[in-house]
Amino acid sequence: MIHVAVLGYGTVGSGVVEVIETNKEAIDKRSAANLNIKYILDLRDFPGDPYENKVVHEYDIILNDPEVAIICETMGGLHPAYEFSKQALLAGKSVCTSNKELVASHGPELIRIARENHCNYLFEASVGGGIPIIRPLNYSLTAEKIDSITGILNGTTNYILTKMDKEGADFEEVLKEAQDKGYAERNPEADVEGYDACRKIAILSSLMCGKNVGYEEIYTEGITKISSRDFLYAKQMDKSIKLLAMSRDREDGFFAMVAPFLIPRSHPLYSVNGVFNAVYVHGNMLGDSMYYGRGAGKLPTASAVVSDVVDCARHLGKTVMCFWENEDVRVADIETDQGKYFVRVDNGQREAVMEAFGALAEISVGISEEFAFITQVMTEREFNEKIKKAGGCINRIRMLSA
Amino acid sequence: MIHVAVLGYGTVGSGVVEVIETNKEAIDKRSAANLNIKYILDLRDFPGDPYENKVVHEYDIILNDPEVAIICETMGGLHPAYEFSKQALLAGKSVCTSNKELVASHGPELIRIARENHCNYLFEASVGGGIPIIRPLNYSLTAEKIDSITGILNGTTNYILTKMDKEGADFEEVLKEAQDKGYAERNPEADVEGYDACRKIAILSSLMCGKNVGYEEIYTEGITKISSRDFLYAKQMDKSIKLLAMSRDREDGFFAMVAPFLIPRSHPLYSVNGVFNAVYVHGNMLGDSMYYGRGAGKLPTASAVVSDVVDCARHLGKTVMCFWENEDVRVADIETDQGKYFVRVDNGQREAVMEAFGALAEISVGISEEFAFITQVMTEREFNEKIKKAGGCINRIRMLSA
Repeated sequence: MIHVAVLGYGTVGSGVVEVIETNKEAIDKRSAANLNIKYILDLRDFPGDPYENKVVHEYDIILNDPEVAIICETMGGLHPAYEFSKQALLAGKSVCTSNKELVASHGPELIRIARENHCNYLFEASVGGGIPIIRPLNYSLTAEKIDSITGILNGTTNYILTKMDKEGADFEEVLKEAQDKGYAERNPEADVEGYDACRKIAILSSLMCGKNVGYEEIYTEGITKISSRDFLYAKQMDKSIKLLAMSRDREDGFFAMVAPFLIPRSHPLYSVNGVFNAVYVHGNMLGDSMYYGRGAGKLPTASAVVSDVVDCARHLGKTVMCFWENEDVRVADIETDQGKYFVRVDNGQREAVMEAFGALAEISVGISEEFAFITQVMTEREFNEKIKKAGGCINRIRMLSA
Repeated sequence: MIHVAVLGYGTVGSGVVEVIETNKEAIDKRSAANLNIKYILDLRDFPGDPYENKVVHEYDIILNDPEVAIICETMGGLHPAYEFSKQALLAGKSVCTSNKELVASHGPELIRIARENHCNYLFEASVGGGIPIIRPLNYSLTAEKIDSITGILNGTTNYILTKMDKEGADFEEVLKEAQDKGYAERNPEADVEGYDACRKIAILSSLMCGKNVGYEEIYTEGITKISSRDFLYAKQMDKSIKLLAMSRDREDGFFAMVAPFLIPRSHPLYSVNGVFNAVYVHGNMLGDSMYYGRGAGKLPTASAVVSDVVDCARHLGKTVMCFWENEDVRVADIETDQGKYFVRVDNGQREAVMEAFGALAEISVGISEEFAFITQVMTEREFNEKIKKAGGCINRIRMLSA
């Protein structure tokens, strides 16, 4: 029997218990063991809950119980999740987590401690809850040099943008509806400003490089400036607007960013709608591949945590493969990135724009007070200089090349 | 140093050598070893080839060399691939294969022999060359009870159907063009009759069940009857036509089939075009997930074989997890399956059809000599009886429910 403790009996933690109980037979078979949930750590009591007698309030009970081999950290937040995880690993107990904030901040350190103590720090659930992506990157794409990763990594913003696209509604209106339905937090900043997607692409980028890509280094732009008008133009161009998190192993260095992009209909990410997320990976031998699933949600996320538990159970006393060294990767400046831009300016700026940008492709949807266009390929620096010369813009959205 | 032998220096075999050489640094790091290609078995000589001095003509040289720990079987065909693989495993040498025919025919036996000899029989490349799907099923979806798998598993037929869809061309015409371009074999039967997809869904179904799903048990229908007219109607319905291979864990038993289906635009498989393939998986906790990539091709397939080599290298002397017992699963009869059907009949049958089917939805694209319609949900048996009563049909295509 392998004893498991769950830290935090909230949405994901209770999901972990539910997954282990519902699929017990299959999970035990694949673990080659009988998994037993011995403790659930929470500050609260859960009278009447079928697991109420497993609930403990002090972490030391779990930490000092030599029978506990695997800990599911589903608390979220940096503290005390960091201290708890570190103590567990130092005691040789494997930790499986859904905590992207902690992984993005302290991943390489916790992975190193796990290695030194012959246990594991696994985090499949930290990126795209219901998309198996960490394990495919670590175990499947082992013959590849990965050139680029492009992901739709946040369910809330994808839900909002999909709604705006389908219904022609404005951002504030759809956000409010999403909040009412529980798809968006009351304080939606982490999602709509792109911070959540940024943590996730930092994790994927680090696995891509085998070194540490700090999330603070990644240029991040949210979706709050996207309006129903932008979608009018997008439709005209047969494109959609998605919040993309991407990293590129460019010739001149590593680059990563989070921002809304116009995506052509022919691109597989175009059809990733609503709460679904996807990760598009390019390898030098494999070419393009994509991993698609629910980005979040209680049971999908819990299922990912439990798949890590199975991995830990099968590798007790042994550290599984994960390359993420504590050596920082320099992320190239956003100003060096290049592409085409879709730009909306006041109609009065038409001549100034023509002068600054030269060749461009006008896009019209019959809004007389605006002039909208697509630029040639240029760097962000060039674009910023030119648009400044032309007197600024109402909005500009980057375009994903096909 | 871990010594590797490659059996068959054709497209995939030479790809394996290329992948190992091109990405040597990354692959050695992930293998925690220095991988060395010691032998290449082929009947031919390759004068001038950089690896010509590794080419041997007798398998015994490889089999009797205790240094060889891993064998890549990229010969294809049942014999002598079966004998070679079995001998290797009995000698404790792991085998990595791209040979779907062999895996579908002798998978459980070879897996058992590998287990008994503390080595591995791995076959990531046997289904969807460039789509990591076997390892995700075995290692990632370990907390799931998989309910269904729906795949576009053959690149040739998907290329043909995509071309027919986009260009309004007829099957024979597109097939000829695909043959001229090398996307289809001179003898295209294995692809266009669905036999290739059938082998692949048999493998995925077996992994889903943990028991053996014989490919001979699976109802298989190819794409040779699909015409440009079918695509006219499909467009009218905002659908496309794809060759799907599917398996379902139904309440009344296990079911699997291969056949062309009408797919709605909203389904993620709708956008899987050209030589790309995808596998759509539904788990009881995770919900829907999808794995997308190149279905075939030299380097994608070789990359998958080499990812198995890395797995073997990291688990020398130890068998990795794979549940596929040699116990046959009964596949339910196609007549028990149910769904809606799109049907085209001669316009003269209109009344007979109305009488036989009752409620139906007419689809018109202005072809006066035809009457086309969508049935209600019914079993295949019911459909067959009704359409017989109505005097047969020009074509009928099953509809994928959303």
